[in-house]
Amino acid sequence: MKENLYRSRLKIPLNEKVLNFISCIFEDLWILDEDIVGTEVHNIMLYEQGILTKNEIKMILKSLENLRQEFRKKKIKLSGNFEDIHPLIENKIIEDIGEKIGGKIHTGRSRNDQIVLDLRLKIRSLLNDLTFKILELMRVLLNLSKKYLDIYFPLYTHLQKAQLGTFSHYLTYYASQLLRTLERISECYKRINKCPLGACAIGGTTFNLNRERVAELLGFNSIIVNSIDAISSRDFILEPIVLLSNLAIQISRMAEDLILWSSEEFNFIDLNEQICSVSSIMPQKKNPDALELIRSRCSKIISNYQASALIIKNLPTGYFRDFQDLKSILKESFDLTFNIIEILKIALLTLKLKKNNLKRSIENSFILAPDIAEHLSNEYDIPFRIAHKIIASLILNENDPKCLRDLKKIKNVMAKHLKFQLNLSNDFLKDFQDLNTVLKNRRTKGSPVRREIVRYINELNSKRGKYLLDVLDRLIYIKKGTKLRKDIINSLSS
Amino acid sequence: MKENLYRSRLKIPLNEKVLNFISCIFEDLWILDEDIVGTEVHNIMLYEQGILTKNEIKMILKSLENLRQEFRKKKIKLSGNFEDIHPLIENKIIEDIGEKIGGKIHTGRSRNDQIVLDLRLKIRSLLNDLTFKILELMRVLLNLSKKYLDIYFPLYTHLQKAQLGTFSHYLTYYASQLLRTLERISECYKRINKCPLGACAIGGTTFNLNRERVAELLGFNSIIVNSIDAISSRDFILEPIVLLSNLAIQISRMAEDLILWSSEEFNFIDLNEQICSVSSIMPQKKNPDALELIRSRCSKIISNYQASALIIKNLPTGYFRDFQDLKSILKESFDLTFNIIEILKIALLTLKLKKNNLKRSIENSFILAPDIAEHLSNEYDIPFRIAHKIIASLILNENDPKCLRDLKKIKNVMAKHLKFQLNLSNDFLKDFQDLNTVLKNRRTKGSPVRREIVRYINELNSKRGKYLLDVLDRLIYIKKGTKLRKDIINSLSS
Amino acid sequence: MKENLYRSRLKIPLNEKVLNFISCIFEDLWILDEDIVGTEVHNIMLYEQGILTKNEIKMILKSLENLRQEFRKKKIKLSGNFEDIHPLIENKIIEDIGEKIGGKIHTGRSRNDQIVLDLRLKIRSLLNDLTFKILELMRVLLNLSKKYLDIYFPLYTHLQKAQLGTFSHYLTYYASQLLRTLERISECYKRINKCPLGACAIGGTTFNLNRERVAELLGFNSIIVNSIDAISSRDFILEPIVLLSNLAIQISRMAEDLILWSSEEFNFIDLNEQICSVSSIMPQKKNPDALELIRSRCSKIISNYQASALIIKNLPTGYFRDFQDLKSILKESFDLTFNIIEILKIALLTLKLKKNNLKRSIENSFILAPDIAEHLSNEYDIPFRIAHKIIASLILNENDPKCLRDLKKIKNVMAKHLKFQLNLSNDFLKDFQDLNTVLKNRRTKGSPVRREIVRYINELNSKRGKYLLDVLDRLIYIKKGTKLRKDIINSLSS
Amino acid sequence: MKENLYRSRLKIPLNEKVLNFISCIFEDLWILDEDIVGTEVHNIMLYEQGILTKNEIKMILKSLENLRQEFRKKKIKLSGNFEDIHPLIENKIIEDIGEKIGGKIHTGRSRNDQIVLDLRLKIRSLLNDLTFKILELMRVLLNLSKKYLDIYFPLYTHLQKAQLGTFSHYLTYYASQLLRTLERISECYKRINKCPLGACAIGGTTFNLNRERVAELLGFNSIIVNSIDAISSRDFILEPIVLLSNLAIQISRMAEDLILWSSEEFNFIDLNEQICSVSSIMPQKKNPDALELIRSRCSKIISNYQASALIIKNLPTGYFRDFQDLKSILKESFDLTFNIIEILKIALLTLKLKKNNLKRSIENSFILAPDIAEHLSNEYDIPFRIAHKIIASLILNENDPKCLRDLKKIKNVMAKHLKFQLNLSNDFLKDFQDLNTVLKNRRTKGSPVRREIVRYINELNSKRGKYLLDVLDRLIYIKKGTKLRKDIINSLSS
Repeated sequence: MKENLYRSRLKIPLNEKVLNFISCIFEDLWILDEDIVGTEVHNIMLYEQGILTKNEIKMILKSLENLRQEFRKKKIKLSGNFEDIHPLIENKIIEDIGEKIGGKIHTGRSRNDQIVLDLRLKIRSLLNDLTFKILELMRVLLNLSKKYLDIYFPLYTHLQKAQLGTFSHYLTYYASQLLRTLERISECYKRINKCPLGACAIGGTTFNLNRERVAELLGFNSIIVNSIDAISSRDFILEPIVLLSNLAIQISRMAEDLILWSSEEFNFIDLNEQICSVSSIMPQKKNPDALELIRSRCSKIISNYQASALIIKNLPTGYFRDFQDLKSILKESFDLTFNIIEILKIALLTLKLKKNNLKRSIENSFILAPDIAEHLSNEYDIPFRIAHKIIASLILNENDPKCLRDLKKIKNVMAKHLKFQLNLSNDFLKDFQDLNTVLKNRRTKGSPVRREIVRYINELNSKRGKYLLDVLDRLIYIKKGTKLRKDIINSLSS
Repeated sequence: MKENLYRSRLKIPLNEKVLNFISCIFEDLWILDEDIVGTEVHNIMLYEQGILTKNEIKMILKSLENLRQEFRKKKIKLSGNFEDIHPLIENKIIEDIGEKIGGKIHTGRSRNDQIVLDLRLKIRSLLNDLTFKILELMRVLLNLSKKYLDIYFPLYTHLQKAQLGTFSHYLTYYASQLLRTLERISECYKRINKCPLGACAIGGTTFNLNRERVAELLGFNSIIVNSIDAISSRDFILEPIVLLSNLAIQISRMAEDLILWSSEEFNFIDLNEQICSVSSIMPQKKNPDALELIRSRCSKIISNYQASALIIKNLPTGYFRDFQDLKSILKESFDLTFNIIEILKIALLTLKLKKNNLKRSIENSFILAPDIAEHLSNEYDIPFRIAHKIIASLILNENDPKCLRDLKKIKNVMAKHLKFQLNLSNDFLKDFQDLNTVLKNRRTKGSPVRREIVRYINELNSKRGKYLLDVLDRLIYIKKGTKLRKDIINSLSS
Repeated sequence: MKENLYRSRLKIPLNEKVLNFISCIFEDLWILDEDIVGTEVHNIMLYEQGILTKNEIKMILKSLENLRQEFRKKKIKLSGNFEDIHPLIENKIIEDIGEKIGGKIHTGRSRNDQIVLDLRLKIRSLLNDLTFKILELMRVLLNLSKKYLDIYFPLYTHLQKAQLGTFSHYLTYYASQLLRTLERISECYKRINKCPLGACAIGGTTFNLNRERVAELLGFNSIIVNSIDAISSRDFILEPIVLLSNLAIQISRMAEDLILWSSEEFNFIDLNEQICSVSSIMPQKKNPDALELIRSRCSKIISNYQASALIIKNLPTGYFRDFQDLKSILKESFDLTFNIIEILKIALLTLKLKKNNLKRSIENSFILAPDIAEHLSNEYDIPFRIAHKIIASLILNENDPKCLRDLKKIKNVMAKHLKFQLNLSNDFLKDFQDLNTVLKNRRTKGSPVRREIVRYINELNSKRGKYLLDVLDRLIYIKKGTKLRKDIINSLSS
Repeated sequence: MKENLYRSRLKIPLNEKVLNFISCIFEDLWILDEDIVGTEVHNIMLYEQGILTKNEIKMILKSLENLRQEFRKKKIKLSGNFEDIHPLIENKIIEDIGEKIGGKIHTGRSRNDQIVLDLRLKIRSLLNDLTFKILELMRVLLNLSKKYLDIYFPLYTHLQKAQLGTFSHYLTYYASQLLRTLERISECYKRINKCPLGACAIGGTTFNLNRERVAELLGFNSIIVNSIDAISSRDFILEPIVLLSNLAIQISRMAEDLILWSSEEFNFIDLNEQICSVSSIMPQKKNPDALELIRSRCSKIISNYQASALIIKNLPTGYFRDFQDLKSILKESFDLTFNIIEILKIALLTLKLKKNNLKRSIENSFILAPDIAEHLSNEYDIPFRIAHKIIASLILNENDPKCLRDLKKIKNVMAKHLKFQLNLSNDFLKDFQDLNTVLKNRRTKGSPVRREIVRYINELNSKRGKYLLDVLDRLIYIKKGTKLRKDIINSLSS
């Protein structure tokens, strides 16, 4: 191992096993770009504040650019000899341009604010990526919604058939959930997109830094004012982790739906073979493996909140090395989520509905019972509670879905429950002959009636558009910082 | 057990043990008020839509008011004979005014949308309560910040002394975290404050309901459009639970700080005896029991997210009885949080700082090392990395805090590290004679320099004011609904 | 509030809100009996060691007995004025017999070892209760196994039909899991059943205590030797909590099975109406609410491990008040488990199998495909991989379960896959005509063949008997201590 | 991608993204050896049962051995084209020796029982490794205990000084915890070490397998009888995961102790520089980074139980692809634990106690107060409650540790509390002059008195020896199977 840059206060080097245990140098490639950009901007500001000379900043920027290129070309071999990415970069710069100038790049900065910077830059970028992926998944859902407007679908409660719906209705339900996720990303982003640099170790610095300028050049909305807050707080990690966890809970439930519906017993949908696996021993099998793995990986994402909470919860104020392990947790949650969304999209785009099975399943069930009870109440002023009892008794007595289409039986059971005489019209059951009519009678907003769903798809699409603009605005704002920075670098290097 | 209102479809009553297992009737007192108000509004809307007659709505409203009064006077004895609060209320109304009218109150409504309504009303109200409690805790923190502007306090990283700060600086760090919690409450509130009624069982209803009108009378911002979304989604439960969990993580860390600082070894603060306990056997003990229990109860709040995630995660789409158990989890998280905030406030208001100990602890430490290294770099253009090495070597050689005040030793070690000759001014150490000067030299925004903290306290106070207005607006909006509702009730009962 | 017994070191009493926050006096009724018994035995030992006189021990034992009776008769009103049960009891005794004698009952004891004692006594007793409940549930499962020996049941993997089995086979699977739980209880019990008394605050005491004697009189196997271990370790709490969590995971999966099978789509079983609920709006519903709540309460039990881990994990060595909150977590886990077992038992005892549906579901499926492929391999020396391909291709081509009973089609597809000629016997399919024969051909131990299941039921029953003897032995051992103690008390009070 | 071995039932290959999502082929190298051994034994049994000919078994064994060697020499390039290791191996064998023979290796076996086999073999081996590592850690602790028998150390409760102890006493406390872990490993091992092969997909097989023989050749104690139990149960994964979690909780608390004690404020121990890190900005820092990362990685291990519980909990009976993700969780928990133990050992072996600081800290405290109160009670028959009050009042009045060595002040405060006259002997305080005497007077078993600790170290060492024999027995038993297997292989290949 090279002479350790920071270790002058100690005589003995790190034990090699301990170094391996501590080092996150390979993980840190994940934030390499962020670390270099952050270092560029910090040093530009040092120059602007008169702490670096023009020559010094030129040398530093050039050396950083070289380093970036070397990394891109994989010319740099990581050897685990560094605890993390920060000393490695400082070391390389000093090797390149000497300690006299290179020894200044860390002026007024600590690894403590630097790692928070890197993570905030990374999370910011991942939240934007996530936004695009969810916008795309919503697009898929809404397009499918339009396609399946007239596919009747049984809605369940307690895993028992509850009310008639449509597949389109179901898909807009998922799109609605994703919309809330977009809203949460937007809010989370606002708190992430703040600049910690200048907080230094934990109590600020005597160097005359311009914190707002650094924020501007990095495309941050503002700075995290209090220096302890910038270093010690980790809610900026917990927020995206739990956002992904809540999303995972939604997605896992959708995977569960699809797994159930593709079973022989439900048999409502046909999963495409390209997402299914087989058995090494059972020749008949076509298993929904991809969806099952979505489900289990959602569990991983959820448990990552618990892991993070365990790490952060009992630490007193300050920076602790414990925080280092949050980085791989964060990375895992994002990586898994991106994969899951991709696979779910493939599953949705390739699935086929088994219309006949759906129809049969609906017709051989009591699923219209609530509509019929409501009809009794609506048209004949029977208090709903009594109407409910009438139909419930009918079902108890007959225990056969056909009874719901048998006017005589309905009349008989009514006679028993009503103290007064009531003549059911002979076309009482007309409204229940075809499912289309049944749904047409659902009057409430948000119900699976065709016109309402069409309206709602439009509403969702328009809100989707709003979030698209939102993320584009965020990108433009970041680019403004990037352009400023690049202009400065160009003008300095010319 | 009374004849079960809903159970006409089954012949056999619930097994008594099963009923006890299922029933949440005692828990449901928590949402009793919400359930009655929701029922009033739903029925007013039914009347406005022509589904109930004027006489019917009068009878129903009167009966609901009677019931509310009886509950308030504890005249109603709960017996566990009901599965939950909804059939109990419907039963009571029917007993009171007969099934002919009473049997109509549930028209176009299901327990599925009703329980979501009750919980959203309850969470809404609890989030407002929480806002006031946090505003108050912030007030305490900011007032104390003003009081402790000049109390030097060591800042730690890795539980090792890092940089000099002030207690005021520390307190504004906590206030900053609470500010973000206020922001999160505000965002969460926006999503909670939506009306599910009209979603009915899961697929809407054929009754001609006016969903927006119900939302208006209950002070909701809007409705949850998609009926499946209204019934099946449970992110509205997960969001407040995780909001409280993240707050608990912050508070637990503060409790941890105070426990550490009140140990004999740190000895920085004196916890008031009124929050301390003693030992049954060790006569010398004064233990920070209240703070320890804050810490453990924060763990409970955090684990409640995991419990909720476990319950919700693997359920397919629909309503399930599993959801029932989220209610007590939610209640526990809010109750614990309210208590914790109260106790923390008492601890803060009564704690005393041990100024002399703090001073001694700072002076007998190397805590000014970073400032001295920066000074070398600032004033003598020594690259910071070299300045860092110089002071680190000094400390390694001498291993005595006094060395930092020994110009000769500093010069000696410099000589070894610098290849060139450099004359340290004789008043080099002047800036480190008193801590006040040290802090004055911290130039960055957010550092513990007095003028900056004063400025930041004002900034925080002004943001605090903004959130106070915010919650007042929310209350006014709710009251508008309440007034509308009460006016209607009055006009109908006159 | 009465003068606080222990609080002489502090001037100021506990703040009332803080007292309410800290006090667990109402919870502590759960361990009241254990606390009194522990106090009796501790004092008997003090007497035997010459630390108390005969008169003193007589007075103390009488006073403790009075107190126990008063509690039983609910004559003691708890007022929240005490932090916990220990000072309350000491106070009562001192009120009763004066401080001169009563002030001696806590000699050589601390609340720290006392609460560990109480909890170990309590857990010990709950583990024995749990053993009986699981033995009973196993009995139910094994009796049902005998009843359902010939009920064919489809076995699933990936929620797709996999292989033919029987319901009996399924039930013995659950019994096997319970057997391992019994084994774990037994192991856990061994570690729980150790006496901490004598560890005092944390470092032992100068009083000449006889720790082994206390252990003997309380029916413990031995003492926890190291005094820090007795006070600071909390694995004795984590172990039963995770034991219950692992059991909950098993039970929840069984509830999930039953919920699925009782859906209209599977329709394999009929849950008894006495465990089902209905809908307030959908007249047709019969919902498996009790099973759903088993599922959600299992989630609570599982998350209790996380809560406990969070509480314990970051505490350094020592006793902390944080531990207090483990008590209610522990209680909740046991209470929920006992209820869940009871409800599950009712569900099992009352459920009916729908034999015809099961038969139809099996016959209309490809579930015999693995047996047929194996038959090809077994009888005609076709490598299994090729046999698998043959049947898989057949299913792919025909996509109709009937093809498995069509010798010609089988022959055709074979011809395509085999390079050599092979004559399938004409009675090739004979073995698949009736399901009974199919199962008879399963030769491996542990498969659902009748004779093997009968054998295995006997094996399980015999192991069940072993654990019954085991728990009886544990009870006898405890009773031996109890008898010794009572004899001493009697001889002293005569 | 090669023609998929198992996929004849489907027309369309797996989507490439889906394959990447599903495939665990790289992870599976972890269980490669286990998979090959399992395949060897399964096929040997097939031969012994007459299902394979002598020639066939020879070819298969030779091909498996070649494959093993190729893997060892890294000649096999994994390409992600396989879902997992099982088809890859079968494919390689078929490529090597043709489908006619190679197509028989999976006869009577499914990936479902195969993966359970591989994991059980792996866990078994890891549990044995873990045993050795814990035995070694215990050895270190016990050796250090002998070394530090006379190092006085303050024991804490509530992070406040409680009673005098020794460092040796503390170390044996940790050794006691590890002993229980060894006990748990032993119990867990017993349940892991059972053979699932023969359960096939889930319902056994018609091939005439000899399950016991397979178990014997693999060194298993017995078979898992019920075939569903073998395939569907996952408590065999949960048990080691929670065992490691409970161990992590213990170790994390020790790391917490060491971090606290190495702070400037406690200053009891000196961590060796080889396990400490420095700061990039604060020249004075020596941070306990390695211990902090032990703490955070323990959190990961703990949260792995939650992840596993989430995955398993809501799955109905059967095999699901979800289970696949348990493998990497399991691996992570073991890997982290092994590293943590190693680093902790280095920390312990290199740490230095600061005897003078410890002495000063003890002497400047009230830590002897309990001993003095007990002395009053022991020697002068003052009820302990009154003795406690006397010393507590003394401390309240004087608030200076020196008061405990001031006979006059003790007498004065006694006079106020006792109604009767009592003459304290003039050498009352003699026993508290030196700490050695204080400890000598601790009479209870398990207290920090020298002779008792020496005795206990011996006891622990002897129990440690018992577990060493235990694990050696387990290894011998496995080797017996291995030898049998190798003899067969040799005899067949000769």
